[in-house]
Amino acid sequence: MENTPNQDLEKLVDLIKDIKTAMFTTAETDGTLRSRPMRTQEVKPDGFLWFFNAEDSAKTYEIQQDRHVNVSYMDDAKNTYVSVSGRARNVKDKAKIDELWHEPLKAWFPQGKDDPNISLIKVTIDQAEYWDAPSSTLVHLYGM
Amino acid sequence: MENTPNQDLEKLVDLIKDIKTAMFTTAETDGTLRSRPMRTQEVKPDGFLWFFNAEDSAKTYEIQQDRHVNVSYMDDAKNTYVSVSGRARNVKDKAKIDELWHEPLKAWFPQGKDDPNISLIKVTIDQAEYWDAPSSTLVHLYGM
Ligand SMILES: Cc1cc2nc3c(=O)[nH]c(=O)nc-3n(C[C@H](O)[C@H](O)[C@H](O)COP(=O)(O)O)c2cc1C
Repeated sequence: MENTPNQDLEKLVDLIKDIKTAMFTTAETDGTLRSRPMRTQEVKPDGFLWFFNAEDSAKTYEIQQDRHVNVSYMDDAKNTYVSVSGRARNVKDKAKIDELWHEPLKAWFPQGKDDPNISLIKVTIDQAEYWDAPSSTLVHLYGM
Repeated sequence: MENTPNQDLEKLVDLIKDIKTAMFTTAETDGTLRSRPMRTQEVKPDGFLWFFNAEDSAKTYEIQQDRHVNVSYMDDAKNTYVSVSGRARNVKDKAKIDELWHEPLKAWFPQGKDDPNISLIKVTIDQAEYWDAPSSTLVHLYGM
């Protein structure tokens, strides 16, 4: 029996919900691929991932030029590896910022949630794959 | 005092040598970014990373079309995150395959090192960045 898209997204949430930090990869205009650690702020089975962003960051520019991103999650102890391919958009949504804000974010935004430089990155998930213990074979999870 | 390129590469080796599995990101022709777990086979301060590859894999085709890759390393416990931007090439080098081969690779290549489908991926490191405990600020490590 094939999973429905919704079951697939629930499985994805299940795999990544305890992995705090993802590597978030963007493409520069010359094709260079760069990644940086990012904390996922909201993981629901709705097809989106949310991140806090400093609007003057390099990645804001990079996703303006090319929306394609990869978000990868790794848990070596559990032998779980997840690749999420999506398209990202820089979103200045004050209500959503208020909803997702929590104090530890002050490490990156010392001025707090009213910092004019804060925005969100909303990733629309196009496809997801994972490798799971114990067989470590690839499972096409979503959107393939 | 600025580090020499060689000291930078030694620092890179130091950061990633104990992180067995990396996420290896490639670009598809439509711009989609995909990643998959890969075990780094050789980490020396020489500006290259080596991986075993199945020559008929999707990534062989992807790096033929676009050599840009990102290899990311994460160690949440140590709070270490490394982004390596490079260009990859599929290399069929029997001597190097023999040199790097070790038995646990049979998990992916059950036929052993003489499997006609085995090749190597050689990544030339263009730039590397890392985020390290405790400050978690970005350090441009190499090639910037
Ligand atoms: C922990 C782990 C390590 C892996 N290491 C490798 C590797 O070193 N080489 C390899 O070809 N595949 C490795 N794989 C399998 C790849 O992740 C992937 O499924 C395979 O290379 C095909 O990828 P592609 O279809 O995107 O080209 C590994 C899988 C896991 C779970």
